[in-house]
Amino acid sequence: MPLLIRLFSTLSHLIGALIVAALFASLLAGLIRFGYISVTDPVTNKPHFLAKQEYLANMPSAKDNAPNIIVIFFDDLGWGDLSSYGNQLIETPNIDAIAKQGLLMTDFYSASPVCTPSRAALLTGRFPPRTRTDRHVFFPDHSVMGVSRRIIGLANALPKEEITVAEALQHGGYRTGMVGKWHLGDHEAHKPNDFGFEYFYGVLFSNDMFPLHLYHNEDIVIEDQRKGGFFTSERDETRPLPGNGIDQRELTSLYTQAAISFVEKNDDAPFFLYLSHSLPHVPHYASTEFANTSRGGTYGDVVEDLDRSTGALIEALDRQGLADNTIIIITSDNGADYNGSPGGLRGRKGDVLEGGQRVPMIVRWPSEIQSGRVTDEMAMNSDLFPTLLNFAQLPLPQDRIIDGRDITGLLKGDEGSPHEFLYYFPVLETLPAAIRNDEFKLMGKAKDFGRKRMHLSRLNGDTEAHDVQNLYPEQSASMRQALEQKQDEVRTNKRGWSL
Amino acid sequence: MPLLIRLFSTLSHLIGALIVAALFASLLAGLIRFGYISVTDPVTNKPHFLAKQEYLANMPSAKDNAPNIIVIFFDDLGWGDLSSYGNQLIETPNIDAIAKQGLLMTDFYSASPVCTPSRAALLTGRFPPRTRTDRHVFFPDHSVMGVSRRIIGLANALPKEEITVAEALQHGGYRTGMVGKWHLGDHEAHKPNDFGFEYFYGVLFSNDMFPLHLYHNEDIVIEDQRKGGFFTSERDETRPLPGNGIDQRELTSLYTQAAISFVEKNDDAPFFLYLSHSLPHVPHYASTEFANTSRGGTYGDVVEDLDRSTGALIEALDRQGLADNTIIIITSDNGADYNGSPGGLRGRKGDVLEGGQRVPMIVRWPSEIQSGRVTDEMAMNSDLFPTLLNFAQLPLPQDRIIDGRDITGLLKGDEGSPHEFLYYFPVLETLPAAIRNDEFKLMGKAKDFGRKRMHLSRLNGDTEAHDVQNLYPEQSASMRQALEQKQDEVRTNKRGWSL
Repeated sequence: MPLLIRLFSTLSHLIGALIVAALFASLLAGLIRFGYISVTDPVTNKPHFLAKQEYLANMPSAKDNAPNIIVIFFDDLGWGDLSSYGNQLIETPNIDAIAKQGLLMTDFYSASPVCTPSRAALLTGRFPPRTRTDRHVFFPDHSVMGVSRRIIGLANALPKEEITVAEALQHGGYRTGMVGKWHLGDHEAHKPNDFGFEYFYGVLFSNDMFPLHLYHNEDIVIEDQRKGGFFTSERDETRPLPGNGIDQRELTSLYTQAAISFVEKNDDAPFFLYLSHSLPHVPHYASTEFANTSRGGTYGDVVEDLDRSTGALIEALDRQGLADNTIIIITSDNGADYNGSPGGLRGRKGDVLEGGQRVPMIVRWPSEIQSGRVTDEMAMNSDLFPTLLNFAQLPLPQDRIIDGRDITGLLKGDEGSPHEFLYYFPVLETLPAAIRNDEFKLMGKAKDFGRKRMHLSRLNGDTEAHDVQNLYPEQSASMRQALEQKQDEVRTNKRGWSL
Repeated sequence: MPLLIRLFSTLSHLIGALIVAALFASLLAGLIRFGYISVTDPVTNKPHFLAKQEYLANMPSAKDNAPNIIVIFFDDLGWGDLSSYGNQLIETPNIDAIAKQGLLMTDFYSASPVCTPSRAALLTGRFPPRTRTDRHVFFPDHSVMGVSRRIIGLANALPKEEITVAEALQHGGYRTGMVGKWHLGDHEAHKPNDFGFEYFYGVLFSNDMFPLHLYHNEDIVIEDQRKGGFFTSERDETRPLPGNGIDQRELTSLYTQAAISFVEKNDDAPFFLYLSHSLPHVPHYASTEFANTSRGGTYGDVVEDLDRSTGALIEALDRQGLADNTIIIITSDNGADYNGSPGGLRGRKGDVLEGGQRVPMIVRWPSEIQSGRVTDEMAMNSDLFPTLLNFAQLPLPQDRIIDGRDITGLLKGDEGSPHEFLYYFPVLETLPAAIRNDEFKLMGKAKDFGRKRMHLSRLNGDTEAHDVQNLYPEQSASMRQALEQKQDEVRTNKRGWSL
């Protein structure tokens, strides 16, 4: 009898699904036929595109002796994945040494718990909805997911009116290079070279997405010849794929060589290098040379590869005599995925819990930042845009809200955090759903959290376990008000235009 | 245009859903009409029901001076929720004191990450599928979920042929009492009094389920008069409901008084008291007397209520002069829910990750167990059945597999764990999906874990973050083999009959 019941249930589900699929297919065909799926250049806001052009055209030169800037951005590296952040199995002596020579931040955040919006925030200084990177991540434009995103009105490329820190620095006289993962769209005229990077060597998407070509500027230098859908079926690092695309075991090494070459070629002007590693995102491809040497398993091998890469880059920099006036920033785009470590934090990649967004942050700048300092002052990767421009003494654009704050004073140890609050933007939503100050974090009714209730947690002595709204009703009410105020502000001015 | 698209999508979903609903409704009507939804007594295996009757009828008397046994079972108390287990906000001085007078176990497990199967395992010594408590939890028999479970062939009451430790002890001459939450069905003849408890005072379901009557034996002493579905709409402890049912703020106190009365009335024979608290399961109703006094918020108030309750019970026991030969066992039915603390462990209630199943375990027995001991030897709540019977020197049934092991030697400090492996049973599955030994844990392709891949983690120096299969291929293979062997064994002999 149960068999008959299951048959009925399956059949009825199938009927519903077929009807939905048929309707969807007709709809899609119609939309393509009548041109509603755009393949044109998605400048979404012309006035601000013009304002951007004016801002860049009038950019003054960076100050004399402006520092070189290297941002090393790891993918999915968790807050607890480095030995300097307490990992007991993985050893990262090179990165730890950089921390000892500079500043280690315990309370630094990515602007999102996933790739695309975090990268957009780092490059533009703006919250995910400002840059239309709210609601998940970008997909290859002609994949099912890419098309679907555009059909339902979501962006799938960074809008042309957005200003990246690379564009600002480039117009201020910097040599700009990007090595590694972009993940801000593969739409024509929306690639790294179109957003201020004069040099690009890397990939446009995550290393588990398809197709994964390796680019040198606009040219494909290694073509992905695998057959597959918009996700590859290949997430298993025990089966690398030499011969029909990038051998991912060599990816970190290829990036490192390109980054070192860039540094070696640019000792005549200040440079900005954005080294955006593809790893330790899944699949965890480690180099064969050091395979199975980390006590942290294959994932540990991958992180230790990245540590060696970092060491080699710093060594090249020091060899060039550039160490003193080069600021090195090491951080991650979001918290640990399922095979990394959030340390003692709650949650992981994809969550607005601490483990989803709190990430390592190490800054070395020998001439300006004292060595061996650790701070628990809070900051976010959206702060880098105004901070880096301040380093070069370049002006900020005036037609738009820059959500990040200049943290120069915090980095140098002269001041505390410029933030009264930080805001957390959940992956599939547009509005912020959580807020923290120095002591507390208030989670709004986020899907992450049990039965969607408010939750106030202490940030010291607890790991977001126990709700303490009853003990701090005033704190709770004022944080709730601040969160709702920010939600209103984003709701009414999603793109954050100030003119 | 997006509006039109959304309209189409919504419509098509609706059509599918309506068809499914219509089919389901006709099916349900038919099943009820033709009597396929059983309301008869679900003895599911007659031969073993007869074997049980024979086993109980031939039960010898417990040994002279057999110890009294008190099992204090908390609901959803996390591994990190007690100060003796490292909580920084919640203070549990009474429970901590008991731990200091006895044994604290760091590696003790519930047999399931949810209520019903864990309770069944504690009382019967058998894995969830043996007792038909695999696949989620029991619901009120006449609720939508209760009916649905029976339609699809799942049990919704503990089968009558199962033998509880209360039945065995009762036939060995123990006075048996249960206070608190049952959660093993409300089917006729399947309530606590039908499974060996001569005294019952408590509720049949979780405190967020409906209706929640308070029973004294078979009688309802406080009737739930709320209107509502199979879940109440009332999960918010800031709005208690006096007047139309149990005032849950008093639940811990009512249980405590009942437990103390039971202890005071039973000093002439050995007794077994199963005090199965409803809290700290949601909703977190704390007593008004000590409201807002815990630094752990309302949840902390609830846990501290439970600690005071434990203190009061122990004090009553000591007052009776029974301390020396009474074994007190304090543990929890599964890991922390969203508002509790798993300590540093990964995962929570519902997960086969450590945070879902590793729970506090404290044992005091002054005449037999030395004070102040801490052990990391592994054990599980299914071990209590054979262990408690051994304390009383009563025989085990021979017609069925008892999955638990006698841990007397471990408790007394004479021996290590009797287990080579522990097995983890995921909530919605029948077969075990993970396995641990002294050093490692191997997760099978459980839904909890990323892209459903195998994951071997060290249990020391890591929190299930990093897969180390590549470093320990032999260990990995042998654990996988042991897991698959157990899966085969359960697949072919789900109910675990040995005769």
